[in-house]
Amino acid sequence: MILVTAINPTPAGEGKTTTSIGLADALHRQGKKAVVALREPSLGPCFGMKGGAAGGGYAQVVPMEDINLHFTGDFHAITTAHNLLAALIDNHIFQGNALDLDVNRIVWKRVLDINDRALRHVVTGLGGRAHGVPRESGFDITVASEMMAILCLADGLADMKRRLGRILIGCTRSGRPVHAEELGATGALALLFKDAIKPNLVQTIEGTPALIHGGPFANIAHGCSSVMATKYALRCADYVVTEAGFGADLGAEKFFDIKCRLAGLKPDAAVIVATVRALKMNGGVPKDELGTENLDALRRGASNLEKHIENIGKFGLPAVVAVNVFPTDTEAELSLLDELCARLGAPAVRSEVWAKGGAGGLALADAVEAAIKKPSDFHPLYDVKKPIAEKIEMIAREIYGADGVDFTPEAKKQMTEMEMLGMTETPVCMAKTQYSFSDNPVLLGRPTGFHITVRELRASCGAGFVVALTGSVLTMPGLPKVPAAMGMDITGDGVITGLF
Amino acid sequence: MILVTAINPTPAGEGKTTTSIGLADALHRQGKKAVVALREPSLGPCFGMKGGAAGGGYAQVVPMEDINLHFTGDFHAITTAHNLLAALIDNHIFQGNALDLDVNRIVWKRVLDINDRALRHVVTGLGGRAHGVPRESGFDITVASEMMAILCLADGLADMKRRLGRILIGCTRSGRPVHAEELGATGALALLFKDAIKPNLVQTIEGTPALIHGGPFANIAHGCSSVMATKYALRCADYVVTEAGFGADLGAEKFFDIKCRLAGLKPDAAVIVATVRALKMNGGVPKDELGTENLDALRRGASNLEKHIENIGKFGLPAVVAVNVFPTDTEAELSLLDELCARLGAPAVRSEVWAKGGAGGLALADAVEAAIKKPSDFHPLYDVKKPIAEKIEMIAREIYGADGVDFTPEAKKQMTEMEMLGMTETPVCMAKTQYSFSDNPVLLGRPTGFHITVRELRASCGAGFVVALTGSVLTMPGLPKVPAAMGMDITGDGVITGLF
Amino acid sequence: MILVTAINPTPAGEGKTTTSIGLADALHRQGKKAVVALREPSLGPCFGMKGGAAGGGYAQVVPMEDINLHFTGDFHAITTAHNLLAALIDNHIFQGNALDLDVNRIVWKRVLDINDRALRHVVTGLGGRAHGVPRESGFDITVASEMMAILCLADGLADMKRRLGRILIGCTRSGRPVHAEELGATGALALLFKDAIKPNLVQTIEGTPALIHGGPFANIAHGCSSVMATKYALRCADYVVTEAGFGADLGAEKFFDIKCRLAGLKPDAAVIVATVRALKMNGGVPKDELGTENLDALRRGASNLEKHIENIGKFGLPAVVAVNVFPTDTEAELSLLDELCARLGAPAVRSEVWAKGGAGGLALADAVEAAIKKPSDFHPLYDVKKPIAEKIEMIAREIYGADGVDFTPEAKKQMTEMEMLGMTETPVCMAKTQYSFSDNPVLLGRPTGFHITVRELRASCGAGFVVALTGSVLTMPGLPKVPAAMGMDITGDGVITGLF
Amino acid sequence: MILVTAINPTPAGEGKTTTSIGLADALHRQGKKAVVALREPSLGPCFGMKGGAAGGGYAQVVPMEDINLHFTGDFHAITTAHNLLAALIDNHIFQGNALDLDVNRIVWKRVLDINDRALRHVVTGLGGRAHGVPRESGFDITVASEMMAILCLADGLADMKRRLGRILIGCTRSGRPVHAEELGATGALALLFKDAIKPNLVQTIEGTPALIHGGPFANIAHGCSSVMATKYALRCADYVVTEAGFGADLGAEKFFDIKCRLAGLKPDAAVIVATVRALKMNGGVPKDELGTENLDALRRGASNLEKHIENIGKFGLPAVVAVNVFPTDTEAELSLLDELCARLGAPAVRSEVWAKGGAGGLALADAVEAAIKKPSDFHPLYDVKKPIAEKIEMIAREIYGADGVDFTPEAKKQMTEMEMLGMTETPVCMAKTQYSFSDNPVLLGRPTGFHITVRELRASCGAGFVVALTGSVLTMPGLPKVPAAMGMDITGDGVITGLF
Repeated sequence: MILVTAINPTPAGEGKTTTSIGLADALHRQGKKAVVALREPSLGPCFGMKGGAAGGGYAQVVPMEDINLHFTGDFHAITTAHNLLAALIDNHIFQGNALDLDVNRIVWKRVLDINDRALRHVVTGLGGRAHGVPRESGFDITVASEMMAILCLADGLADMKRRLGRILIGCTRSGRPVHAEELGATGALALLFKDAIKPNLVQTIEGTPALIHGGPFANIAHGCSSVMATKYALRCADYVVTEAGFGADLGAEKFFDIKCRLAGLKPDAAVIVATVRALKMNGGVPKDELGTENLDALRRGASNLEKHIENIGKFGLPAVVAVNVFPTDTEAELSLLDELCARLGAPAVRSEVWAKGGAGGLALADAVEAAIKKPSDFHPLYDVKKPIAEKIEMIAREIYGADGVDFTPEAKKQMTEMEMLGMTETPVCMAKTQYSFSDNPVLLGRPTGFHITVRELRASCGAGFVVALTGSVLTMPGLPKVPAAMGMDITGDGVITGLF
Repeated sequence: MILVTAINPTPAGEGKTTTSIGLADALHRQGKKAVVALREPSLGPCFGMKGGAAGGGYAQVVPMEDINLHFTGDFHAITTAHNLLAALIDNHIFQGNALDLDVNRIVWKRVLDINDRALRHVVTGLGGRAHGVPRESGFDITVASEMMAILCLADGLADMKRRLGRILIGCTRSGRPVHAEELGATGALALLFKDAIKPNLVQTIEGTPALIHGGPFANIAHGCSSVMATKYALRCADYVVTEAGFGADLGAEKFFDIKCRLAGLKPDAAVIVATVRALKMNGGVPKDELGTENLDALRRGASNLEKHIENIGKFGLPAVVAVNVFPTDTEAELSLLDELCARLGAPAVRSEVWAKGGAGGLALADAVEAAIKKPSDFHPLYDVKKPIAEKIEMIAREIYGADGVDFTPEAKKQMTEMEMLGMTETPVCMAKTQYSFSDNPVLLGRPTGFHITVRELRASCGAGFVVALTGSVLTMPGLPKVPAAMGMDITGDGVITGLF
Repeated sequence: MILVTAINPTPAGEGKTTTSIGLADALHRQGKKAVVALREPSLGPCFGMKGGAAGGGYAQVVPMEDINLHFTGDFHAITTAHNLLAALIDNHIFQGNALDLDVNRIVWKRVLDINDRALRHVVTGLGGRAHGVPRESGFDITVASEMMAILCLADGLADMKRRLGRILIGCTRSGRPVHAEELGATGALALLFKDAIKPNLVQTIEGTPALIHGGPFANIAHGCSSVMATKYALRCADYVVTEAGFGADLGAEKFFDIKCRLAGLKPDAAVIVATVRALKMNGGVPKDELGTENLDALRRGASNLEKHIENIGKFGLPAVVAVNVFPTDTEAELSLLDELCARLGAPAVRSEVWAKGGAGGLALADAVEAAIKKPSDFHPLYDVKKPIAEKIEMIAREIYGADGVDFTPEAKKQMTEMEMLGMTETPVCMAKTQYSFSDNPVLLGRPTGFHITVRELRASCGAGFVVALTGSVLTMPGLPKVPAAMGMDITGDGVITGLF
Repeated sequence: MILVTAINPTPAGEGKTTTSIGLADALHRQGKKAVVALREPSLGPCFGMKGGAAGGGYAQVVPMEDINLHFTGDFHAITTAHNLLAALIDNHIFQGNALDLDVNRIVWKRVLDINDRALRHVVTGLGGRAHGVPRESGFDITVASEMMAILCLADGLADMKRRLGRILIGCTRSGRPVHAEELGATGALALLFKDAIKPNLVQTIEGTPALIHGGPFANIAHGCSSVMATKYALRCADYVVTEAGFGADLGAEKFFDIKCRLAGLKPDAAVIVATVRALKMNGGVPKDELGTENLDALRRGASNLEKHIENIGKFGLPAVVAVNVFPTDTEAELSLLDELCARLGAPAVRSEVWAKGGAGGLALADAVEAAIKKPSDFHPLYDVKKPIAEKIEMIAREIYGADGVDFTPEAKKQMTEMEMLGMTETPVCMAKTQYSFSDNPVLLGRPTGFHITVRELRASCGAGFVVALTGSVLTMPGLPKVPAAMGMDITGDGVITGLF
């Protein structure tokens, strides 16, 4: 199993999905039984900022239009089940509130697979007595639903049902936590997942099998595709290429510490995708000057890559750097990058899968195979039985390079509540900005001398982890001034334009 | 083409879908090329009051579990497109409001395919300046979306796109109406319907083809499955059995005056489903005494059926009464019903399709064929070019038996606004309680001496009709004290219980 | 005791307060011990539509600026006590809700003495758990507070305290009504009235004593100044002139049936103020044509006055018509009016108190004295022990000239709730538009052939009457496009302009 | 002019108002022309936590009941004017919004003189188009109104009107700040203050004149009674005793830096009120052990007093410590206090004015006179022309003993907005917890090694200062579980109980 991860994302783009697909295609070209396991795209960003998410160029999964639009309906199933639970909660309160739920402490919100900032904060239950009890609430995007994380961590329908029942929905006026199973509808919730629980099999343009299943946020959740898809892929193939969301500080750490730990998976190597452009941006170059050679900026920005390489080693795994080559990269820049990576013992391999498909990833495939053959010793970063604060400290110091962690009084109070919930011996899921190792999105490169502030803890009792929130984490995106939707069209004959 | 409709619904149940399926099965058994065209079930009531909606007993469409749960995702596509348009509206306001939309006059709400009363009236855009502009709004159930009506009236993707663009979303502060196309995303909306626009082919237990496609509300919309499915069925089969929502005063009237008129369809006969129990309830018998023979009550209640029979004649069509037999019906009761219908020239045929499948509907099939063979002269009730008030008067007097129509000052004002919208020569879609011919749900049987009060007019510019609201019409149901969801389950192996 | 009332108000103005003051001044000039008892003006309309309310011209109470602005703070005391009770209710819910109050059935709102439409409907208790429990509520203008009605009906502080305790604030989730005394703060509420309970003594320009105290709305309350002021005036003077809000159909009826009945007062005569202009407006003349002689319109519009004259007789009292003369009135018009009134046995006397003070009201004073000397037999209209529906019917038929009363289902339900509240043997306070005898504000003159629709009943348990709401009654006015506030000013030396 | 201030307040109480009154009475007994100038009490806390605020024991102003309840209506005038401005803002938006005000950036809230947490965060303008435009807003308590600060800083009606016009109400959608005068109703606002602007003259029990006028919060405003009252007192008397809210770190600093600077006042000495009990509490003793002698705790806690003594010196003034003696104080404790103060050159004088009136304050009066006679050199702390950040740094370092100030990004952004508003050369009004020198309410005594975090800046353009908010400052208190209102009563004869 090979994890494809990346440096901290920049507006310049890195190409993680494209590299994952291209690497699998390259292995496939080399005659290996390879499968790529990916996340399903969300409709929200599709119509918002960036169009679809099915790879690009000659490294794509097909049928792209179907994968990007509704696909097999998995996200709609999550949306429906999530909102059914919400409706059951409000109905319970309306029908007499036998559980004495505190309307001010319901933590279960609603979701839609749309970028819609106007739904972040709403007051529901208005209109008078016949229309429910007023409450402040809000909507997240579907990928932020705990049910999405549950789908991706469950090992089958029975486990899914158990986890759905364990979801924390709020607490009573006397402070007792209340879980979904107390509403008596866990069966109905599970029922809505009868098809969504099945991994979806498609293929790349080159015919390599691709399993696309689930796609949780990489901030308030763990950011990788489903355990079921990964295990299924491992049973079918010799090489499973998979990816994790955002940069390696979030995506890879959670892939190792949450997904692999909970599912008993053992990865063999990690590929870190980087581009000259993104590294120069990390080195302080503005977006519109990225086309100009700038070795100093590249050197400065490469500190970001170096830290990620070091981090992979902390999990006992070899790292390979995939340099996603752009036409504007100069040979001097690419050579400098080779040199810098070599110093850290990580081969930097140029990848041209966007332009050439699997053929452009053969060198990367070779380097990955070489890395896998070296002895490795995968292990999670921290002992899950340590106190929550220690686990967070460990991640912050080791992975982020922070000097320490500050907990707000609110977070400290919640830390003790986690005991009541039996959530002290679970992994911790860090919700942090993806743009920086720190919790301040403008500190690019490899910042030092900073503290991480944990302002809130949340219990994802169904998923099985504690979320630690730092900075302000937005779980419902907004649309930009000119949404991608404005450029899309379909003719009467079904010809689609503008989707990617 | 045979329309299956019914008397005014009661809690006793009538069996319209079951009869439609059984009739098609019976025709099929008789060697005819028959297709049944039905509406798709909504998830809201499925988890709320009544479980699934795919027929029952031996007159069912299969696979029932799939049809009732997500099916091919058509409703999810509507939900997504509807809410994308809503998000685009709020984003437009947030991003500077170039169109100067009046936040107090946005008429486009949001939808979910869930029964959730707490979402009927909400305030959105709260939380401060970064999270949109505050507005009062609400959610309807997905079947109440104008996009559902559009899907069911469009004759293809190109027409669909045109209609989506024509949707009225609100008006500017100076009072100019604004349509969806002004937001520049009609293409993206249409894109979301690329699969949903295709009718879904399944079959009955007996192997009769069934086209299940669309399912608009029969109050604020026209209540029948899609024109595309109906036309496709007509091309493939000799006998197309289809149904319309609620009783014939709403469902059949709209089927004839809206769907058939707009799509150029020409039905041949109408089947009115009735049960002895429901007629006795119309005659004043409480639900727990329906098991006792009561000829007087039946005679009184049958006035409801008689009016529906008369009404079918006003469209130039023959009517057949399908008596959905229950074990508690006595022979005396059934005979009385025969007699009463015979007086009006409509054969009353006993149907046992629930218990016996198509075999239980052979007599009905014979009666329907006989009716079809008689010369008929189908025509809509009213001239669509007449003023709105006249069209409403005509429906109220001729179909409901009202003495007249009162328009509130608000409705009168809106009537003149319809001119500005170019909506004066469209059909009128009456939103009225389904429980009575009048706008007062407690007046059962065949009430007389009443007026209909039209309190509001709404322009469904995309669907192409004006909605006239009478009484209070709920477009987002609530869950009951013990939702059906509580009785549902699925095992780890996928065995489903409690769905019907 | 002489009541000054008026025809149905029109935008043309009638001059009720001015006439009351002028009549008292005239009696004073004639050497009688006369006192005028008036209502206190509200700050809301003062800054909104019409400036102050202390009479006009030479028939004014002074110091006008003080009376119109804060005066002795009585209204502020009501505002404070009203809102303290509201704060205690929300605090009770926040602190554990020992009474189990239903947040959807709190009927006690908040008040401000400001015209502020944005406060009519609000959601309070937002911002999270530390800031209370969310509720839908709203603000009325202070004169609409039940505490205002209580102040005006109480016969002292002890009675006031009892009535404050009886105020209905809402009901529990199980439906039990909850009164203010259950919150344990009746003493504190009464304390806030320690000064406000005392009638305020000022004088007219001519030195006639004036008692100005209280001023409840004449729609949801009874619309007259306080019982305490009236009784105090009766003890001090031989002639007490007082007025009631809106036209005689609302103000006089409530003065007789509520205030006089509950306080055991016995009025001797009623003066009905009318103007040629207002009667012509009632006869259909638009506002900008009132300067032109129009005998036909006057004859038509005088039907309004005639009905009011008849109505006064139904209470056993003589009526005198005060014709408030305007420069544009022609002699032909004034003579016609004399003639029409004479036919009904009510002298029509020209009053010029605005221009001439008490000297302009001497003829009116003579006519009133003559009327008083005639034997009279004052009695309320209805027997207070009759059922609520009968009392309402009696008012509607006898006073309004309606053919009957329709009760909405909601109102019928509330009628039975009044029994649980022990509110069946109290007077009924009609909340109806002031512009028409009917509940439709555009039916001027003396409409016939109409029904009154009662859509809601409210229990003013503290005041001691049941409010019957017809039409839509606004209890919080809004400001006009150019509020009167814009024309007001005060110099650094305290010179005030624009207040009247 | 003598300022009476105090150590940081604790639940043990200090007796600042009582000491002010007693000191004036003592000077009066000594034959001096003395006047005490105090703040008016707010109704909110009166009915909430602590009952009235008119001094206590034999050092009281009378008539206490009137002063505590409505008094001369000044606060009601503020409430009315404040809310009239709010109503004008919402009316402006409703009537077409000619100024293009951004509904998300209106900073002018509403006020009530009630403790009502449920009004802190509200949504107004709900109910549809006729009832205004929805907005998020809230209510503060009246003492937090900027109009209260304006009343207390204005030097007459003309100045008041200018300041009212300068109030910042919000900004347009393009970001331009909008002031009250743009709504055209400054004259009407000033009109409402025609009486409230006049200082209120009452007396102490011993007959010493007392001017009670205004009472702004000491967090978001400057916390002292009106400039007009102070100047009037200075013209009439030889000795003016006045007080400032909260401890000397807030109250005295603002009295000197804001009130004295802006009004050109020159104080002569400061009295710091302390109690043995409160100092022991500052030294870590829990409230229920304050009755026990504890010299160690007293020594530790006295560090708080010492810092305040030092601070007074920084303004060039002599300090006198008034030890408000309690029966539980031991001689050893009182002697220790004498000794500690002596070391800092500030005489510590025992005051027994609560028990003995002026007679108990003679020693204090002597000490104050002695202090006044010493040469003093009053000057504000900082140069008002320095940048805002420097002024805040200066206060934080010099007065609070902080190591520095952190500004949030939001605060930094607002600092530049202050330039656009022309608010850079005004005094700064610190909104900080009153319980600690730091911004953390639990750090008692004399904390060191801390930073102050400024999270927000607000422009009080009318009052003429910039408010710097640290920590969370509540501007609308809530009621406690058992509000003081529950213990109050008034008999039918007007006998009041429970008010103090």
